[in-house]
Amino acid sequence: MSTEHFMVKNKPKIVSIGGGTGLSTMLRGLKMYTDRITAVVTVADDGGGSGVLRSDLNMPPPGDIRNCLLALSETEPVMEKLLRHRFSGGRLRGQSFGNLLLAAMNEIYQGDFVTAIQSVSDVLKVTGKVLPVTDEDVELVAVLENGQKVFGESNIGHCLSRYGCRIETVCLRNKKKPSEEIVPVKEIAEEIQQADLITLGPGSLYTSVLPNLCVHQLAEIIHKAKAPVVYINNIMTQPGETDGYTAFDHVQAILKHTCPDFIDYCIVNNRKIDTPLLSKYIEQDAEAVPYDSGRFWQTRISVIEKDLVGIQDNRYIRHDAVVLADTILDIVNKVRMKDSAAVSEEGVLLYQPKRSRKK
Amino acid sequence: MSTEHFMVKNKPKIVSIGGGTGLSTMLRGLKMYTDRITAVVTVADDGGGSGVLRSDLNMPPPGDIRNCLLALSETEPVMEKLLRHRFSGGRLRGQSFGNLLLAAMNEIYQGDFVTAIQSVSDVLKVTGKVLPVTDEDVELVAVLENGQKVFGESNIGHCLSRYGCRIETVCLRNKKKPSEEIVPVKEIAEEIQQADLITLGPGSLYTSVLPNLCVHQLAEIIHKAKAPVVYINNIMTQPGETDGYTAFDHVQAILKHTCPDFIDYCIVNNRKIDTPLLSKYIEQDAEAVPYDSGRFWQTRISVIEKDLVGIQDNRYIRHDAVVLADTILDIVNKVRMKDSAAVSEEGVLLYQPKRSRKK
Repeated sequence: MSTEHFMVKNKPKIVSIGGGTGLSTMLRGLKMYTDRITAVVTVADDGGGSGVLRSDLNMPPPGDIRNCLLALSETEPVMEKLLRHRFSGGRLRGQSFGNLLLAAMNEIYQGDFVTAIQSVSDVLKVTGKVLPVTDEDVELVAVLENGQKVFGESNIGHCLSRYGCRIETVCLRNKKKPSEEIVPVKEIAEEIQQADLITLGPGSLYTSVLPNLCVHQLAEIIHKAKAPVVYINNIMTQPGETDGYTAFDHVQAILKHTCPDFIDYCIVNNRKIDTPLLSKYIEQDAEAVPYDSGRFWQTRISVIEKDLVGIQDNRYIRHDAVVLADTILDIVNKVRMKDSAAVSEEGVLLYQPKRSRKK
Repeated sequence: MSTEHFMVKNKPKIVSIGGGTGLSTMLRGLKMYTDRITAVVTVADDGGGSGVLRSDLNMPPPGDIRNCLLALSETEPVMEKLLRHRFSGGRLRGQSFGNLLLAAMNEIYQGDFVTAIQSVSDVLKVTGKVLPVTDEDVELVAVLENGQKVFGESNIGHCLSRYGCRIETVCLRNKKKPSEEIVPVKEIAEEIQQADLITLGPGSLYTSVLPNLCVHQLAEIIHKAKAPVVYINNIMTQPGETDGYTAFDHVQAILKHTCPDFIDYCIVNNRKIDTPLLSKYIEQDAEAVPYDSGRFWQTRISVIEKDLVGIQDNRYIRHDAVVLADTILDIVNKVRMKDSAAVSEEGVLLYQPKRSRKK
């Protein structure tokens, strides 16, 4: 067996859980290092073009799935442009063509959304796999600190400004069968069990990351898996959702929805953001997430500080896809080394033992 | 130079003019023989999903173009299924996904429909070229035998039942600039001048074939070209449009809109259609087009009789794509032979002289 073959075989399998822009940014970076990526994507979105298609065609919201497919695809620039295109006029105004592609495929496969996504993946030559976290028709529900319940992702995103109260917890409700549990898409458990690393985020805490962990038994499956769990903290707070949150507040919210030793690694940003750029965000009540290192000391979470800031179009603060992917791959290698792997003189991993549970 | 190369170089260049199902059926057959095909497609359609997009997004009707692109494409079956898919519910009900693809690309290229089609052609790996006959916003106008004018293709198609009167002639009106001529898309003249053969039809006489010949100077450009003009007659009459028409009545309508020696060859069906199949058509006031050979004798048109009938889904009478393509290729070869071509012992064409005008 050649070393090269072995290296290919040893490309890490990464399961990335989340939604929104954050997840797709990260996937773009990860695919440079491995083709064994599975994105697990929230389907609680009920706003924008996705919300329209959801109510109009009775299908899961396609927007976040579309962005992940595009992030992992190897398609020509014209195809990518096409799939990102939003109609500028008529009754389709604002709707994305990529969403319509998923909607058409979903009809062709008679509502089997997982197969529809797989078929679109084939058309777009997608590296890895994109899975909706569930194929049930779900609604996100937030319980506020005052006990009030808020229904629907698009309402929850503006919680503080609308209801003057912070979010305490979120959960999912089965829209068609309210008394039933939301079960994960069946492939997900196996993907997680086989993973070398599981990532959470970055992205909106209560509307992109946590909705996945509210799916029945998914947090448990993740916790029991051999792979360490890495949480990628947000760079900026989300107005109405995580106002005033520190890095540890984000972590704490996740632990509250799962269990105290759910997260093994946390990646945080340590770059101070320039004032001109920050001021635009402050106008919209967003601020940089402070890294409150002291609170992490009480936990067994390994914190990795990095300059994660990537500026898009001179105005948007995003995670730098390359730095993030580098950091995640460093964790994979560190874990492999720690597990007493056999490494050749050139530093090529020759043997990776079956890891014992990390905790 | 190898014989093989010469043969490839000598693949005939065919310009096929028309619209609707007829044109796309023929293209499917022709592409088995040559990759030098240019489809020139009518853009007068104002009904169905095309009509909706036309008024909603202010774009040319995409339906006929979509069918021709699919007929000439080498895409995977799933992609073809996708592009043919019509949404079954919601506000997109009945709209074809392929139409939306053309609509999105038309927006991306800021209304340059010819470039948008070319870009879709690249995505679908299309053999040859599909051109809209004009990029003006046109309306089809029919003048009835009683002098009355009927506006809009979808009204003209039901002329006899709606107005109790037959169509005398059709013409095009520039919707945005009514006093201006409708000019053909500029590539078309060159395509026609370089053609080895020009085909008209099959398809709805007044709403698919003739609208092309109403474009300013296009009939003249075709008539002056070196290539012979082949008209493929319809198998069935079109209710409300060509009721009671014989094969020669179809030809006569074309000559009335062009000039007396416009057509060189006419392909007609000589197969009697089985009564059970025919009866469904008769219920809808359609009948088999009779071949009135005697009236052709007065002309210089060479008539080729063939069993052209292909049955689709056990119910629809269509032209048989293979028989039609065979027949057209026979004409190409006949013309080449007549023009004193040099042919090798194996029957391979070795030299094709520049032809003198056929008339």
